[in-house]
Amino acid sequence: MTGTSIVGVGMTRFGVHDEPLTELFAEAAFPALDDAGVTAGEVDAFYLGNAMGGLTENDTHLAPTLASHVGLAGVPCQRFEDACATSSNAFKHAVRAVQSGEQDVVLVGGVERCSPATGLGTDVMTRIFASAMHRDYEQPSGLTFPGVFALLTRRHMHEYGTTPEQLAAVAVKNHHHGSLNPRAHFGRDVTVEDVLESPVVASPFHLLDCCPFSDGASAVVVASDAVAGTLAGEPVRVAGVGHATDVVPLADKLDLTATQSARDAAAQAYAEAGWGADAVDVAEVHDCFTGAEVLATEALGLFPAGEGGPAAAAGRTALGGEVPVNPSGGLKAKGHPIGATGTAQLVELTEQLRGIAGDRQVAGAERAVAHNLGGDAATTLVTALEVAS
Amino acid sequence: MTGTSIVGVGMTRFGVHDEPLTELFAEAAFPALDDAGVTAGEVDAFYLGNAMGGLTENDTHLAPTLASHVGLAGVPCQRFEDACATSSNAFKHAVRAVQSGEQDVVLVGGVERCSPATGLGTDVMTRIFASAMHRDYEQPSGLTFPGVFALLTRRHMHEYGTTPEQLAAVAVKNHHHGSLNPRAHFGRDVTVEDVLESPVVASPFHLLDCCPFSDGASAVVVASDAVAGTLAGEPVRVAGVGHATDVVPLADKLDLTATQSARDAAAQAYAEAGWGADAVDVAEVHDCFTGAEVLATEALGLFPAGEGGPAAAAGRTALGGEVPVNPSGGLKAKGHPIGATGTAQLVELTEQLRGIAGDRQVAGAERAVAHNLGGDAATTLVTALEVAS
Repeated sequence: MTGTSIVGVGMTRFGVHDEPLTELFAEAAFPALDDAGVTAGEVDAFYLGNAMGGLTENDTHLAPTLASHVGLAGVPCQRFEDACATSSNAFKHAVRAVQSGEQDVVLVGGVERCSPATGLGTDVMTRIFASAMHRDYEQPSGLTFPGVFALLTRRHMHEYGTTPEQLAAVAVKNHHHGSLNPRAHFGRDVTVEDVLESPVVASPFHLLDCCPFSDGASAVVVASDAVAGTLAGEPVRVAGVGHATDVVPLADKLDLTATQSARDAAAQAYAEAGWGADAVDVAEVHDCFTGAEVLATEALGLFPAGEGGPAAAAGRTALGGEVPVNPSGGLKAKGHPIGATGTAQLVELTEQLRGIAGDRQVAGAERAVAHNLGGDAATTLVTALEVAS
Repeated sequence: MTGTSIVGVGMTRFGVHDEPLTELFAEAAFPALDDAGVTAGEVDAFYLGNAMGGLTENDTHLAPTLASHVGLAGVPCQRFEDACATSSNAFKHAVRAVQSGEQDVVLVGGVERCSPATGLGTDVMTRIFASAMHRDYEQPSGLTFPGVFALLTRRHMHEYGTTPEQLAAVAVKNHHHGSLNPRAHFGRDVTVEDVLESPVVASPFHLLDCCPFSDGASAVVVASDAVAGTLAGEPVRVAGVGHATDVVPLADKLDLTATQSARDAAAQAYAEAGWGADAVDVAEVHDCFTGAEVLATEALGLFPAGEGGPAAAAGRTALGGEVPVNPSGGLKAKGHPIGATGTAQLVELTEQLRGIAGDRQVAGAERAVAHNLGGDAATTLVTALEVAS
């Protein structure tokens, strides 16, 4: 199996963008290609993550359109829709295509618009997000995603004693990390009191426990190690990729707090990498809500079940702590343009492993994991990256 | 590279279906698994094609939902959206995963609802179909898909003298083939006069030049040759898969009649198969409109440029002719539930190569190609199948 590396990265600032999706994506893709030191003619294929472009922009066949816009017309293009995990799944397939020798250099990216720049109200967007939940058993009940993660988190509080203050500590940490990230949607610090005094969205979540509706794009260039050695972009090795699903709907899950698909995906990624949670120096996880970060850090094995909340409150996951989580600010503060989130996690971790993350740099980071979840905890991708030896 | 075969197939009748998509898909998936002789526990992954479930049913994260419904919860699931070519692209990725040794047995399927069973009018559905065209350059002009293929076909008439009667001959042939297919949406014969006297939709296309808005599902089981040898399902070898895109929008294409992505994809598939157009015994092609079949037979190399129309009119592509095209009835008569179309082509060709296609059987068929196109001639997948030796 061919060794595979990320050799170039690019992303827009996450926030509000009103240009066409083609132009928004180009703002991530061209920097990624430039960073890798490859021209469009050297790219063999394009893998796109976009979750809701049909519903938000009446735009479904985006992959060839974006490819044409950035000079890649003709290469095989594919769009993945895997809810919030979509661009991580696109990345997995890109990595497998390079590992198998089918392709040498591929572009992977994600783009999405979720802010009021869509022209849609937050009520309509909330219903659109809910399209990633079970059509027959969950949508008709009125459940939406704050409710999904509130149910998971409430159960975690019941089983382990996780507190609202511990959840708020996740928001405080990620807002602070975001304040150090010029590409973050939110750039200001908040306090535990700010979080607990913000309006309740779906108990136990207050407004500041929730990620924003963001627009943005991100892209990475993946290459075989043989080709990577000839390119200008500093390579970061893809050590392993895990991908699993859990039963749908929520009501059928065996355990609401274990996020089984994340545990299975993490086990796969660690097995492929040949190292485990103990070796992880930095993680980007899917903190669409603060409680989701607690569940994610436990599913990744960074902390035992029930200790994710206390660990966050004790600063163990902050920059300077033993295993910094979401140095980018995470979905919570960096923002969450659905299809762009997975590859944006990989952009941050590539910069961390290159040692160029500036004020957000995790000192001496050599091994990293990304955790990207989609739907009602249905799909999870875990990607393990390491410094090229 | 591991040899790969289709070992099981299943599909619903195409037409009007009002059950939930989970149940509709199960009607294709269970027969495919039964035909293969595999249980759900033996399936390593699920690849789904669905193009517009967000817009038509507010249902985006379908892959894990469908997997759970048919007993596959836990396996890696992915949904591909590649317009009308979506389940062929899912199939390509499934084949590559088996070829590379990543997986041994995978389920590939497509499901879609486009008929008034969606609860949507044909005007709304036409706008939804148009979401697969360029958002900034084509949709605002009012162009919809009958118009896209009318432009391509008008140019073909101008360059080569293709006539309305030749186009009508494609419809007559495919309606007749459909009358022999119990799973076809349309089961009645039509005449050239019926076609030419039906209302004009987008000149040169009359109503009977156009495929219907159908609901349906289809599924195939793909296995490595090593595993296929242990299963009950009679294997059909995957000889090659090609996949290419063309520049988007239409206005930027170098040639409106050559459908370049189809030519590129066919060249790839033939190269992988080690045989070419001369060896093809039977083909399923993407005849969303009669003119599209003419362009497809030329792009596949079955006829030289400009000779697709006369060939159809002369009966060379009919059952009993030298190279039967769309023995299933094609999109024209079998129907076109977008995401289900690509794998349905493979269901038909598998049955042809097994020699069990009944009244539609192409005598002695040993090599077959499927041609599945998406968007404004943006994406094409060509799959080459052959009798297992």
